[in-house]
Amino acid sequence: MKKVRDKYYFGIDLGGTVTKIGLVDRKSNVFEKITFSTFAYNSKQKLLHHIVKNINEVLQKDSKRKRQVGGIGLGVAGLVNFENGLIYKLTNIPGWKNVRISKILKKETGLPVLVDNDVNVVTLAEFIFGAGRGARNMICLTLGTGVGGGLIIEGELFRGSSYSAGEIGHFPLNADGPRCNCGSYGCLERYIGNRYFVSRVLEKMKITSKGNKILKLAQGKFSEINPKIIAQAAQRGDSLASEAWCEFARDLGLVLAGLINFLNPDVVVIGGGMAKAGKPLFEPLRKVVKKFTLGIPGNTVKIRKAQLKDENGIIGAASLFF
Amino acid sequence: MKKVRDKYYFGIDLGGTVTKIGLVDRKSNVFEKITFSTFAYNSKQKLLHHIVKNINEVLQKDSKRKRQVGGIGLGVAGLVNFENGLIYKLTNIPGWKNVRISKILKKETGLPVLVDNDVNVVTLAEFIFGAGRGARNMICLTLGTGVGGGLIIEGELFRGSSYSAGEIGHFPLNADGPRCNCGSYGCLERYIGNRYFVSRVLEKMKITSKGNKILKLAQGKFSEINPKIIAQAAQRGDSLASEAWCEFARDLGLVLAGLINFLNPDVVVIGGGMAKAGKPLFEPLRKVVKKFTLGIPGNTVKIRKAQLKDENGIIGAASLFF
Repeated sequence: MKKVRDKYYFGIDLGGTVTKIGLVDRKSNVFEKITFSTFAYNSKQKLLHHIVKNINEVLQKDSKRKRQVGGIGLGVAGLVNFENGLIYKLTNIPGWKNVRISKILKKETGLPVLVDNDVNVVTLAEFIFGAGRGARNMICLTLGTGVGGGLIIEGELFRGSSYSAGEIGHFPLNADGPRCNCGSYGCLERYIGNRYFVSRVLEKMKITSKGNKILKLAQGKFSEINPKIIAQAAQRGDSLASEAWCEFARDLGLVLAGLINFLNPDVVVIGGGMAKAGKPLFEPLRKVVKKFTLGIPGNTVKIRKAQLKDENGIIGAASLFF
Repeated sequence: MKKVRDKYYFGIDLGGTVTKIGLVDRKSNVFEKITFSTFAYNSKQKLLHHIVKNINEVLQKDSKRKRQVGGIGLGVAGLVNFENGLIYKLTNIPGWKNVRISKILKKETGLPVLVDNDVNVVTLAEFIFGAGRGARNMICLTLGTGVGGGLIIEGELFRGSSYSAGEIGHFPLNADGPRCNCGSYGCLERYIGNRYFVSRVLEKMKITSKGNKILKLAQGKFSEINPKIIAQAAQRGDSLASEAWCEFARDLGLVLAGLINFLNPDVVVIGGGMAKAGKPLFEPLRKVVKKFTLGIPGNTVKIRKAQLKDENGIIGAASLFF
C-alpha cells in the first residue's frame, strides 16, 4: 500500500449531515475539496453515485493525476469491518446495512479503498498530523452529540478483536444511572453527550436564580442554549456554567483517569465540538485526572486539545493509507 | 533471544512472602523447583545471594545443563522498567529501590536476565499456556489483597509508555468514595480488595441477623472469616454471602464492562486468590458485564477463570523469553 510514487489519496468524510471529499498529500494538504449535504441524496444509490461522480471528475480533470492518486480512504459514523471494507450499519443514515463499500467504490473508480470508523480516522489524523504527533500510545476522544474514542497502541491504530475498540461513550459510570439510548444504564454519554449536558444545565437554571449570563448570551431564549454559550458564560464568570463544566469534567475525568491508569498512554487528545469549550472544560478535567491517577501514569500523560479542524475527517480517511 | 537450542529458562517468582524458583521448558513443565520464605532473608544482599546460590547450584548440578539454560526471567510485585531491567521499588519488600536486578543477576550467573511486574508475568503465562491460549487481545485480572491487571494487545504483552499499564486496582469507581491507601478515593481495590471485601461482609453481619452459614463455617470466629469461607457459604445458600459476591461482581463488572467496550478483547482471564470463589463470583459477574457492554464487544468476549495454579509466576517469568 505504501508506494512512494503515490502522492495523493482521496479522503472521504461521510457524516450524518455533511459529506466532505478531498485529495490529500502526505503532508496533510487538502486539494479539490468538495462538500455537500448528505441528506440531499436520500438513498444509498444516489449518495454513492454522487460520491463516485465527484471522484471521477477530479480524476478526469487532470489525466495525469490518475496515476498520482493511490487510493480512497473513507471514514463513516458507524460500524465497520476494516479488514474487508464492509459497513455493518451507519449511525445516522438509514438504509446502509452490510454494504461492501470498498468493493463498490473500487469497481467504480479503479482505486483501492480503505474504510474505517469516523473516530478511528480522526484519531489517526491527530496522531500523524495533530496533537498526538510523536506519541507512542494515545487515547483520542471526540466530544459531541455522542462521545467517541480511538486508541493508538505502540504507534498503530488499535481496532480490537471485532473492530469495535475505542467505544468510550457507553462506559458505565453508575449501575443505577438513567437509561441510555444504547439500552444500557448510566453510560458516560448519557451524562456528557451534548444534549444531555445542555438539559442538565437547563434543569439547574429552573431551580436556581443563577445562570443569568447563559440566558443573556442566548438572547433570552432557552432553546438557543448550547455548549458554546455555556462555555462563554463560564469564561465570563457565570457560576452555574462553571459548575456545569466541573461536573462534566468530573464525569469524564473519572473514566479517563481509570483508562490512563490502565493503559499508561503518553498523550490524550480531546476533540469534537464540545472540546471547543476550552479552559472551562480543560482546567477542571486536568485536575480530576491528576487527582485520580497513580503517580507514574498521571505524570507521564499529557492532555491536549485536538489540533486539526474541519478537515480532520478528510485527512484522517486519507491517512488510512499512510 | 529465541534460540531453538535453548531448552530451559529459570523462572523466579519473587513474592512478598514466598520466593519460588524453577527451570521451565517451552511446554511449561517446571523442574528443579525451589521455594523459600522471602522474609527469611532480611536484606537485599542476603536475598539476592540466596537466589544466586540456588541458581548456580542447579547450573552446576549438571554441567551439561549450563548450555541448555537460555536465561533467567523474574517477576516481582512492584514497579519495573522492563527495557533496562531496573526495579524502581517493590511493594512488600523494603530496601529495594532502583535496583538494576538484571545487571546483578547476569554478572553472578552469566545468563541473560529479563524482569517484569508479577501481574504482567502471570498475564503472559495465562496467554501462552492457560485460559488465554489463542486469544489476540486479552485482559487478565488478579484478585487478591490487591487488584492487578495485565493486557495482551495483538498477541503481545502491552506495557504502556512508562511500563505501568494494566493498573486496574485504582480505577476510580466513585469520586466521593472512601480514601484508598494509594492516596486517591473510591478506587476499585478499595471496594473489592480481599480485606475490604471481608470487612464489608463483617459490617453487614453486624447489622442483620443473616450470615449464619458464614459464621458457622468460620467455627464461630469472626476473625477467621475470609473470601473462601464467604464463597462456601454462598454455595450453601447463605443470602448475605451471595449478596456480598453480587456487590463484588457489580463493582468489578462495571469497570470490566467499560474496559471491554473500550478495548474489545476476545478473552478476559480472572485469577488470583479471590477468583477461587468460582460460581458465586463468576455468575453475577458475567450478568453485569453482559448488561453493561455493547452488542459487539459484549458478544465477542469470553470471561474465563485462570487455569494455571501455583506455578504461574515461575512459568510466566520464564515466558518473558518465549
